Amino acid sequence: MNRPILASIHIEAFKHNLNRVRTLAPEAQIWSVVKAAGYGHRLESVLEGLADTDGFALLDLRDADWLRTQGWQGRILLLEGLFSANELTEALALDCDLVVHCQEQVTLLEAFAAHSGHAIRIFLKLNSGMNRLGFAPTIYRDMYHRLHALGHQVDHMTHFANADAIDQKPTVGEQMDCFSKAVEGLSGKTSLANSAAILWHRTALGDWVRPGIMLYGLSPTGLHEDIAHANLKPVMSLTSEIIDIQHLAAGEHVGYGGRYTAPQAMRIGVIACGYADGYPRHAPDGTPVWVQTNGTGVICPIAGRVSMDMITIDLRNAPDAQIGSQVELWGQKVPADTVAAAAGTIGYELICALAPRVPVELIRKS
Amino acid sequence: MNRPILASIHIEAFKHNLNRVRTLAPEAQIWSVVKAAGYGHRLESVLEGLADTDGFALLDLRDADWLRTQGWQGRILLLEGLFSANELTEALALDCDLVVHCQEQVTLLEAFAAHSGHAIRIFLKLNSGMNRLGFAPTIYRDMYHRLHALGHQVDHMTHFANADAIDQKPTVGEQMDCFSKAVEGLSGKTSLANSAAILWHRTALGDWVRPGIMLYGLSPTGLHEDIAHANLKPVMSLTSEIIDIQHLAAGEHVGYGGRYTAPQAMRIGVIACGYADGYPRHAPDGTPVWVQTNGTGVICPIAGRVSMDMITIDLRNAPDAQIGSQVELWGQKVPADTVAAAAGTIGYELICALAPRVPVELIRKS
Repeated sequence: MNRPILASIHIEAFKHNLNRVRTLAPEAQIWSVVKAAGYGHRLESVLEGLADTDGFALLDLRDADWLRTQGWQGRILLLEGLFSANELTEALALDCDLVVHCQEQVTLLEAFAAHSGHAIRIFLKLNSGMNRLGFAPTIYRDMYHRLHALGHQVDHMTHFANADAIDQKPTVGEQMDCFSKAVEGLSGKTSLANSAAILWHRTALGDWVRPGIMLYGLSPTGLHEDIAHANLKPVMSLTSEIIDIQHLAAGEHVGYGGRYTAPQAMRIGVIACGYADGYPRHAPDGTPVWVQTNGTGVICPIAGRVSMDMITIDLRNAPDAQIGSQVELWGQKVPADTVAAAAGTIGYELICALAPRVPVELIRKS
Repeated sequence: MNRPILASIHIEAFKHNLNRVRTLAPEAQIWSVVKAAGYGHRLESVLEGLADTDGFALLDLRDADWLRTQGWQGRILLLEGLFSANELTEALALDCDLVVHCQEQVTLLEAFAAHSGHAIRIFLKLNSGMNRLGFAPTIYRDMYHRLHALGHQVDHMTHFANADAIDQKPTVGEQMDCFSKAVEGLSGKTSLANSAAILWHRTALGDWVRPGIMLYGLSPTGLHEDIAHANLKPVMSLTSEIIDIQHLAAGEHVGYGGRYTAPQAMRIGVIACGYADGYPRHAPDGTPVWVQTNGTGVICPIAGRVSMDMITIDLRNAPDAQIGSQVELWGQKVPADTVAAAAGTIGYELICALAPRVPVELIRKS
């Protein structure tokens, strides 16, 4: 054993969550979004847990290459398309679908078509109001026709800015109106819904849904309450152990900056997990950590600033905790979204930031 | 080329910063702290850039193993010692120095000594007020004598909680008093100073200094102003490119939640870098990004929430920026500490969180 920190990836939870998507969008095909190393879960985990998907959506050609090398024969979508001309040959060799979101990419494909009859599967991206990637509605149809004229299969895509909110502009309805107008009368399938739309905008699914965060069992809003009844299961558990215990007198301080002051004589547990493992440094005193005890385990609050390699917790709830006691930082006992919310962010950021130094273990029974 | 994001590691900056430590602590030996993959810079970078150090201090035995495999013959210190009994044989085979910070580790070494005459180099850790790792002053001397009786070389170590602050308890002076009393009359060298103490507490160096953050050219306080005149050079530059540009009308919104609203007709640049690359999701509108222009480059502020794979910036300062324009997220034009401060954290967290998907290139000329 090295440091006792470990990320456990529950394969059955992946399968369960993918089935939830099938249930919620029974007529759609599924692009499982696995960019950022499967949101930090590692590609080997998603390849096994999400094997029943129709396709994987990602960013990096080397990830596509890895999936093909492992024998994946389904579709692969490059969510931001090509970053340069020299990626095209490899992308086609790997039989990838391409998103096309800017004129430079259209020009590149036109230059390529001049000396090739290769038909490419394209998802043309409309900027329907998010103002990140994609073509303005005023030029979208022109781009469609230019690509269609090259003999490519051109499908339609857009991305919602606020499918997880009700009071922010642009709304899903506004973006849907924009999309419908832009694609009116054009052939091709559609891809619209992210996790939030799959859960909460059931009329905005399209032919291909694009679940991301819900596959990992976290909330699109970053608030665990919002998926508490959605029947999703957290896939990742981050666990570690208590590696030291300090006995404080009232008035003594803990850690850098002395942020926590002991209100009475008490024990502080030191856990082998810090921000360089991916735990958020913003986590304030009170952020919950689950500690195994002789009973069923209890929640102990963080006490003192998160360091690079360690967290300190108030052990008053766990009088029988000792060096070697197991802790869960997030997962099945403490939702990652709850830790994230305490730190002012969303669960997405935590799981994606799982550090390479944390070993990952695939758990195959639920 | 894949995604255009890149972390450049400036080897000459490492050498320069290590020389600064030598100048500031000319009589001390140097443990260069390279845990967390060299604070995100990768071990191959520190091995080359910090080759003139006296020793490397780290956490993971597999990192020690990697350094030995690469031919490193200097000292290696395991900063948290052994995490379990079965690490001991490997730690000794790798000729590591051990920190001993809890009774379990002392007991383990006593059990081992019963069937071995192996003399181990130990840094015994005193908890002088930080209340994280280490022995209380009341039992420190007892632990020293137990380990000394086993024939080991026992040196003394403690860690400052507030060497980067002047108004927080415990102070460096209080911790120094505690340390001096605890080790009085005991043989052995001392290791006290982290980067902040090397820079600002020149009477608290000890025989072995332990620079961390200053080797990477960032500030112990997390505020760039505090090292602006310390003659340190940033080692990591994180760069990317503009991959799309949107033309907004006044009143249009950008990104998730529509956080940024265009005050006038303007261009928004989309950069291939997001929180899954290690950029802080907390970064608010206004956080500086350097953009290469036909001139010397300008600062453009973030406009809209940081997404997983992308950042959006206000291009009004850079009328000639286009798709393909280079940007620096942090490094030589924008200090990592400045980005961190905008996001409510410290540069340490940013560099440590550099994601594995970001390629790293070693730059050998300054």
